[in-house]
Amino acid sequence: MPTPLEELGEFSLIDRIVQRLGVAAARNILVPPGDDAAAWRVEDGCAAIATIDMLTEGTHWRLDTMTLGDAGWRAVAANVSDLAAMGATPDYLLVAIGLGPDVTLDEIDDLAEGMLKACLAHHVRIAGGDIIRSHTTTISIAAYGHSLPLADVRSPFLRRSRAKAGDRIAVSGTLGASAAGLAVIEALREDEPGAEVLTRAHRRPRARVQLGHDAIRAGIACGMDISDGLMQDLGHIAKASGVGIEVDANTVPIEQAAVDILGAHAALDFALGGGEDFELILTGPGDVLKRLDQAATGGTPVSLIGRVVADHPGEVIALADDGKPYEPASRGWDQLR
Amino acid sequence: MPTPLEELGEFSLIDRIVQRLGVAAARNILVPPGDDAAAWRVEDGCAAIATIDMLTEGTHWRLDTMTLGDAGWRAVAANVSDLAAMGATPDYLLVAIGLGPDVTLDEIDDLAEGMLKACLAHHVRIAGGDIIRSHTTTISIAAYGHSLPLADVRSPFLRRSRAKAGDRIAVSGTLGASAAGLAVIEALREDEPGAEVLTRAHRRPRARVQLGHDAIRAGIACGMDISDGLMQDLGHIAKASGVGIEVDANTVPIEQAAVDILGAHAALDFALGGGEDFELILTGPGDVLKRLDQAATGGTPVSLIGRVVADHPGEVIALADDGKPYEPASRGWDQLR
Repeated sequence: MPTPLEELGEFSLIDRIVQRLGVAAARNILVPPGDDAAAWRVEDGCAAIATIDMLTEGTHWRLDTMTLGDAGWRAVAANVSDLAAMGATPDYLLVAIGLGPDVTLDEIDDLAEGMLKACLAHHVRIAGGDIIRSHTTTISIAAYGHSLPLADVRSPFLRRSRAKAGDRIAVSGTLGASAAGLAVIEALREDEPGAEVLTRAHRRPRARVQLGHDAIRAGIACGMDISDGLMQDLGHIAKASGVGIEVDANTVPIEQAAVDILGAHAALDFALGGGEDFELILTGPGDVLKRLDQAATGGTPVSLIGRVVADHPGEVIALADDGKPYEPASRGWDQLR
Repeated sequence: MPTPLEELGEFSLIDRIVQRLGVAAARNILVPPGDDAAAWRVEDGCAAIATIDMLTEGTHWRLDTMTLGDAGWRAVAANVSDLAAMGATPDYLLVAIGLGPDVTLDEIDDLAEGMLKACLAHHVRIAGGDIIRSHTTTISIAAYGHSLPLADVRSPFLRRSRAKAGDRIAVSGTLGASAAGLAVIEALREDEPGAEVLTRAHRRPRARVQLGHDAIRAGIACGMDISDGLMQDLGHIAKASGVGIEVDANTVPIEQAAVDILGAHAALDFALGGGEDFELILTGPGDVLKRLDQAATGGTPVSLIGRVVADHPGEVIALADDGKPYEPASRGWDQLR
């Protein structure tokens, strides 16, 4: 007897997903979903900015820690975050889905709903995609956006290679909440007070698109998003820019709920090496970075956490209150290690 | 003891792959590989055209039928073909790779070389990517290109929905060679005379970019590539256009080597339902389609194989010499069936 998915078939399933994506499906572009490729008008005078990511069950999420709807949200947010990290405006996503053998139609509907909600939250739409059968459920998203008009700004992109000795280092929001959320889920402590802030950061993270724009307009030229872990991601900036980086560990903004539930030590280590926060790192003059802080108005908080130095190029050091180096349990995520 | 891949780590492996991609890595764009996203200048007045695909071991290739270098070539060609099928000029690829647990460094080098060669053959470059660990080796490519200037042409895209009753149907090249190639490999008959034409079509297919352009410039508005199988892909045109389609089975161009090795019957069935040929289907006035045929000059052959009718909308019928319907063993590939 055919399974419900076999009965539906590939092309009816695609129709169903496009239906369920609702307003997140880009229907009024030059060529909407349903043809060999999608087409849209580009903004004259702007650069195209694009990125691709792949997430797979077992490596990036587990069915006992999040639903497929959460995984869909995260895949969208992770991609949009890579565009935000360039200071770009996200426009369209292309979504390739590998369906594992046990995926049900309900789970696929949930996946579509998670992507829809993430698209609404991030003002992007899905222009096309691909569905295949695979051994493990896998989501690959390519995100496509545009820069500010190239003639309007001196540095149209936030680059990893533009940090200079003397720059201060800033991060948005609070760090470590996603990793703390996973720890809370794994410890079966989701019902504790404050846990929801952490589990939500893990399952439904938000990318910082507006801050990326604001940074470009303020003249900031160096930035990236925190996906692998603060220390490791700062290492990419240090290497690409040929500079050293010092982080004052006690100034790294930490989610209070992580301290309350997991303790200050674990919370700090998650902030330094946890990853998947999708907050932005920015480097530049301290006064410019301080003006980006909107915490007082309820907007994106931006905190200064360290400085760029000419010493120890390529190296990132965290310093404790006593001025001695502090090494967290992990510096971040390496896919191969 | 760490494996060679663990020792290398994610970021050194990415550097190695970018090195090995050589001129296929887009180094002189606004933001080359190595940042959160890639950026490039867009052609003012043209539309952006983009597509995504996912291929995975076991479903799309097997290690006993092709190398990872072949899989890399195919992934590039399949994506470029989707742009060719719109009449677009391919510009850049973004490549996400999920490395299965048994993949060796030699195989990754081979994958990079296969992608490099396919990029050279198709005049595209790789602007960025992502590498993850996964249960099964998986390749997802997003391809970005641009249309002809929108002001220059009446129909800037080859759409599935633009077939009209009275149109003739044409296909490029020969069909069924890829599926015949797989059959030859599985039957251990690779050493037979002529087999190489078929195995090469299976492992190293070519997309028809120039023909897509020529068709747009000639005023053709309807087309797609043959990826799932001729009959099934014609079905997409029939449904999207609300028309019926009739194919004269004996006019479908078949690779002679497939007839010689597998017999005329199997060769015809592979041509009608085999898929993965990445040839183009075009519909339009017969005289316009005939003028696209460059077989006499050594260019892309284009053959008329049938017609678009007002009867049986959404249905595709193959007709034998005696005028009776001919049903091939398979109409094509459905991911879920």
